[in-house]
Amino acid sequence: MKNVSSYILILVAVLATTFSCKDQVTSKSANENTTISDAHPKLILTAQGVKDIRAQLGTIPIFDNTLAKVKEEIDAEIEAGIEVPIPKDYSGGYTHVQHKRNWVVLQKAGVLYQILGDEKYAKYVKDMLMEYEALYKTLPLHPKTRSYARGKLFWQCLNDSNWLVYVSQAYDCIYNYLSEEERSKLETNLFRPFADHISIDSPQFYQRVHNHSTWGNAAVGMIGLVMNDQELIDRALYGIKDLKLDATKKDDDGGFLNKDGKAGFLANIEEPFSPDGYYNEGPYYQRYAMYPFLIFAEGLHNVKPELKIFEYKDGVLLKSINALLNLSDADGDFFPLNDGQKGMSYYNSALVTAVDISYHYGDQDPGLLSIAKEQNQVLLDDSGLAVALGIKNGKEEPFNKKSINLSDGPNGTQGGVAILRNQDIELVFKYAAQGSSHGHYDKLSYSLYEKGEEILQDYGLARFVNIEQKGGGNYLKENKTWAKQTIAHNTLIQNETSHFNANYDIGSQHHSVLHYFSSENENVKVASAKESNAYPGTEMLRTMAIIKDEDFEKPYLLDIMKVTSASTQQYDFPFYYFGQVLQTNFEYKTKETLKALGSKNGYQHLYLEATAKANSDNSKFSWFSNNKFYTLTTVTNHKDELLFTRIGANDPEFNLRRDPALILRTRNSKNKTFVSVIESHGSYSPVTESAVNSKSNIKELKVVLDTEAYTAVQLTNIKGNTKLFITANTNASKEAKHNITINDKNYEWSGSYYFN
Amino acid sequence: MKNVSSYILILVAVLATTFSCKDQVTSKSANENTTISDAHPKLILTAQGVKDIRAQLGTIPIFDNTLAKVKEEIDAEIEAGIEVPIPKDYSGGYTHVQHKRNWVVLQKAGVLYQILGDEKYAKYVKDMLMEYEALYKTLPLHPKTRSYARGKLFWQCLNDSNWLVYVSQAYDCIYNYLSEEERSKLETNLFRPFADHISIDSPQFYQRVHNHSTWGNAAVGMIGLVMNDQELIDRALYGIKDLKLDATKKDDDGGFLNKDGKAGFLANIEEPFSPDGYYNEGPYYQRYAMYPFLIFAEGLHNVKPELKIFEYKDGVLLKSINALLNLSDADGDFFPLNDGQKGMSYYNSALVTAVDISYHYGDQDPGLLSIAKEQNQVLLDDSGLAVALGIKNGKEEPFNKKSINLSDGPNGTQGGVAILRNQDIELVFKYAAQGSSHGHYDKLSYSLYEKGEEILQDYGLARFVNIEQKGGGNYLKENKTWAKQTIAHNTLIQNETSHFNANYDIGSQHHSVLHYFSSENENVKVASAKESNAYPGTEMLRTMAIIKDEDFEKPYLLDIMKVTSASTQQYDFPFYYFGQVLQTNFEYKTKETLKALGSKNGYQHLYLEATAKANSDNSKFSWFSNNKFYTLTTVTNHKDELLFTRIGANDPEFNLRRDPALILRTRNSKNKTFVSVIESHGSYSPVTESAVNSKSNIKELKVVLDTEAYTAVQLTNIKGNTKLFITANTNASKEAKHNITINDKNYEWSGSYYFN
Repeated sequence: MKNVSSYILILVAVLATTFSCKDQVTSKSANENTTISDAHPKLILTAQGVKDIRAQLGTIPIFDNTLAKVKEEIDAEIEAGIEVPIPKDYSGGYTHVQHKRNWVVLQKAGVLYQILGDEKYAKYVKDMLMEYEALYKTLPLHPKTRSYARGKLFWQCLNDSNWLVYVSQAYDCIYNYLSEEERSKLETNLFRPFADHISIDSPQFYQRVHNHSTWGNAAVGMIGLVMNDQELIDRALYGIKDLKLDATKKDDDGGFLNKDGKAGFLANIEEPFSPDGYYNEGPYYQRYAMYPFLIFAEGLHNVKPELKIFEYKDGVLLKSINALLNLSDADGDFFPLNDGQKGMSYYNSALVTAVDISYHYGDQDPGLLSIAKEQNQVLLDDSGLAVALGIKNGKEEPFNKKSINLSDGPNGTQGGVAILRNQDIELVFKYAAQGSSHGHYDKLSYSLYEKGEEILQDYGLARFVNIEQKGGGNYLKENKTWAKQTIAHNTLIQNETSHFNANYDIGSQHHSVLHYFSSENENVKVASAKESNAYPGTEMLRTMAIIKDEDFEKPYLLDIMKVTSASTQQYDFPFYYFGQVLQTNFEYKTKETLKALGSKNGYQHLYLEATAKANSDNSKFSWFSNNKFYTLTTVTNHKDELLFTRIGANDPEFNLRRDPALILRTRNSKNKTFVSVIESHGSYSPVTESAVNSKSNIKELKVVLDTEAYTAVQLTNIKGNTKLFITANTNASKEAKHNITINDKNYEWSGSYYFN
Repeated sequence: MKNVSSYILILVAVLATTFSCKDQVTSKSANENTTISDAHPKLILTAQGVKDIRAQLGTIPIFDNTLAKVKEEIDAEIEAGIEVPIPKDYSGGYTHVQHKRNWVVLQKAGVLYQILGDEKYAKYVKDMLMEYEALYKTLPLHPKTRSYARGKLFWQCLNDSNWLVYVSQAYDCIYNYLSEEERSKLETNLFRPFADHISIDSPQFYQRVHNHSTWGNAAVGMIGLVMNDQELIDRALYGIKDLKLDATKKDDDGGFLNKDGKAGFLANIEEPFSPDGYYNEGPYYQRYAMYPFLIFAEGLHNVKPELKIFEYKDGVLLKSINALLNLSDADGDFFPLNDGQKGMSYYNSALVTAVDISYHYGDQDPGLLSIAKEQNQVLLDDSGLAVALGIKNGKEEPFNKKSINLSDGPNGTQGGVAILRNQDIELVFKYAAQGSSHGHYDKLSYSLYEKGEEILQDYGLARFVNIEQKGGGNYLKENKTWAKQTIAHNTLIQNETSHFNANYDIGSQHHSVLHYFSSENENVKVASAKESNAYPGTEMLRTMAIIKDEDFEKPYLLDIMKVTSASTQQYDFPFYYFGQVLQTNFEYKTKETLKALGSKNGYQHLYLEATAKANSDNSKFSWFSNNKFYTLTTVTNHKDELLFTRIGANDPEFNLRRDPALILRTRNSKNKTFVSVIESHGSYSPVTESAVNSKSNIKELKVVLDTEAYTAVQLTNIKGNTKLFITANTNASKEAKHNITINDKNYEWSGSYYFN
């Protein structure tokens, strides 16, 4: 912090001495331009924005700090000199990392030129762009061949597009600094061929509805906006004109290249976002896709305000930011739905963009200011200025994440994701559509969190992003053989096969269906959804509730999975816990040698560590993780088995984490209702060595009624107090009136569920 | 904090209104007493101390805050009422927890009475003591039979002693509040029989040199000081008069009960502490033993100043506090040597006692104030007042932990523990004696830390202290079958047997020997030690250096283990890393089924996950843990194998953590010099998804000379720069002059090692 503070001082000094210079820059652009949309900068920074920022500098701490850090970073880069190597490596390799670094540096140097008015930044950008111009015109396709769409600077067009999205901004910032001749040289030899390569030359990459294409569209569109090239802008918005791709072709990840012919930026907004702003691939990829969506939208807003891009599809771009923020745990880490790498969070720079843009172009939600403050940086543009001023003026309020239901699908009719929150407990319940090529086969799966820690985990992806030693930083084969398979998730597996047989084409045709969602009651939050296609002939109805009961220390999870099938099946029902086995009320026997639990569909990756027969009506399992206690109480019968497993079998390169699970297994069942409660209770301090509330508070969990229409579960705690939860399995509308008798007692209520 | 603040306000108000009451209390004691040593309180709080504290209250924030929290805690207890149940449970069970709670509450309530002068606290203490009096006289031995020395309130005398150490203080605080008759009743029916039970009736517990006995001694001595009972005081200081125990008997943990007849508090200071203040069982048990040592010493200092207890054995009690603080990592967690539970730290209340007493009765080291500030509480006595005033007066300085060598053994001649520190890297190298009954068979073992995180771990103990579900919170059988065995540690294992055959009697007769320790050079810290008895006929000389080299990002560990044997052996050399395998330069093959690596000596608990043959002169292994990169480079030849293992085999109750190791194995070797470097390098951010410096900086590690007199290791980094480290294997004195030729080049130096 000392460094930053002293930089601010220096910065203020620098500003004081460069005000003449600033005027010069402004007047220069004023001289050359006539209309607003022709003035530069115009794309992200605007001429007026630069003026406003300069007027506030030194009085807006978060902006000043960000600027000081960027200045420090870029000054060091300028000091170190320009490096534009001949492309050679995959992700994580030297040339990849260097070109990636360069796009960041170019964009930032451009901004510094505008805000500080110091020509050394403009010169630096120009010099590096000229090196790129000299290099690019000599480049064949990138020598690495693994991608379905090879770039020139990078092994895949995706990264080339990343480059252009950033570098367009840099070009815009120094546009007026360059001579017409220089601009012509860059546009002719670098920018236009670059835009053509990632679009016309790579339609399999560009002409799709996919996060890759969004980057491509934004890249082409942004350079088009800077160059005022309507053809490029149209290509960005609507796709390559008159081009239709083979609808049956697939990309590296197994996703269809272009099944329905849709393409372009607007289609990419239309398709993947639900009306609630849920992005069909999940939050990890939404975060990745967010930057091109928002930065291009900001550019369109600035240069083509008539498009009203932020109002497009009922304002879905801004809604999606709210959805994304809600798809994070208490620490701001995104829930790792589908192919999501754990640890990605709203501290990612794409989310700085998202939060600042959402605040500025949205309705100035004061909750966003508290996230911006945690992020501790802002965009160095008009929206960042707005956020900095909001914080400076003390407008911030906590960003309250609530229980929320986010529909999936372009029209919001393809299932969704429900998040139930109460106090520190968060449940993420996924009943969405396939999630494009990054989707997992995990219908009605869930993960459970407490204060940002996983109680029951979703594995996430099998990949070490950008760690070259692990498969070049790319998807590992275990992503397909393990992470995507159903057994890797907390949901039902039938006959050791994955949902839809892990067939992408079939999975993509279906989605689960919301049964009901209810979050009005302060103490009881419920989400219920159905899945009928994952296993033809088998229906699953899962009702999950987070319940705050005064007899319990913390809210608990009640999970009712009602399975009905036309024929006899084996059902597996895993709980991916963490930490140490503490206690069970069933006798298990550990294995002397560990073998894989199965041979395919992910089962080949599980070691079987111990087995048990359920010997009572409730099987109880307590575990200990991160100095907290947890207990699973699940309804069982004598046909049920309990398997302790651990991930790691058939993993020849140690790509998988050795994480444990308890799997409840039932053989030869048709209909089976799995009823479980997960309690988080108590804590342990290794400093005081005291264990507090280390035992379950549940005496008995009992299904007292289970019909086509209703499932009723009675929970008796150790004090002997009972609670009854009845869920309506068929008519669950808010208005529906119910009247049933259980054990001679009458229950009458209206709505989806009864709890008392 | 708001609560605490408002409590302080209330507190000040309470004090204002109770000053008359205070005077009353003071005058009451003044009336009854004549000499200082007869006045009460006198044991820990003193009459003068109480006066001084009252004079400063409200002006010493850390003291005021501690007092406010204690008041809040005890007021709630008084509100809740007294519970003195009939003893029944093991650790973690209800009656155990309640009696444990009571001793804390009694001690605190006594202090509050003295400081605040409010009689409600005295009455509460009196009432509870009377309930104990009524109960105790009816009690048989505790019904649980597992202990070698059963208590009456608790299942073991140890806990009964804990109780009396605290309750003596409470009794002292309300001594003058009680009538003579009441005191007589308590002393006759409760305190004296209590003291007799834990001493005369339980000599196998009391008459020893052992941390249990220290508690017993302190308990008997402290109640003796309060009651002014010279016989009890003498029994505390010197043991039970004229009693000799069978020298061959052992306790539950396999330790000798009393081999040499020594007993009593002074013998307990004499024996386990080395002159450097190292406690022979290691820091975890030192922390546990510390409280009775220091609190009884404080009492002796106050009541029997003529004993000069803090000067005893050259001031070893205060030195031991400094040693203990140095035996903690960057987070303040103690290194888990021997039976140590991870997570125990200097935030433990025993360390509040230690730090405050060390400051007050020692030389007011300003570094201790910074630890006290982190602890955020002080003792509510004279020493806590001194610390609070020191902090208030801004005297605190950082507590700098340096590289330090701590001798073991009563005379400092039984090996020791060396801690090498440079920047964020800490090496703990153990070449100590057996460590009493809590010792592990791990001669010349080490663990390595970075910023408080384990790079290479020591397993610690196999126990979940006070977690009743795991073996009643006591030692698990895996502590003996796994945690104590040599294979559980980062050291050499010969022929799959443990050091000394894991025989306690033999292990107790030996210790390793310091070869040299050098920490003067800012960049090179070295510790070297020999072990000749762990495997008769085999000598091990291990030289470990933490080296800061400008070509490396962080200091690295150079480890030279020179083994010479009279006959052919199999050597195993494990590295207990954490996290994910990233890369190796050797080809390994994972196992399809996992089997135990062996059948005994801890090997039965290791699964063999993969095997490899070393196929180059350097075997390299990189791993990824907690978003950091690590690489082992180790010198190998074609006879060497590499085994990937994981703990957890033959663990029928899931008592062990599933932690991995890489084991370097050499069969049919006589002499073998293991030379390894561990680098910590770079980092990964899951938010930016960038991997920095993810690869080893070492090109080649080579033994260029290995004779009886010298071992020379040449390290070449990827820039091609080489460094040479030569260690003197025989004459390593500081003064020794060396002159040798390696590859035609001459090296001349004086001292233990050469590095350049």
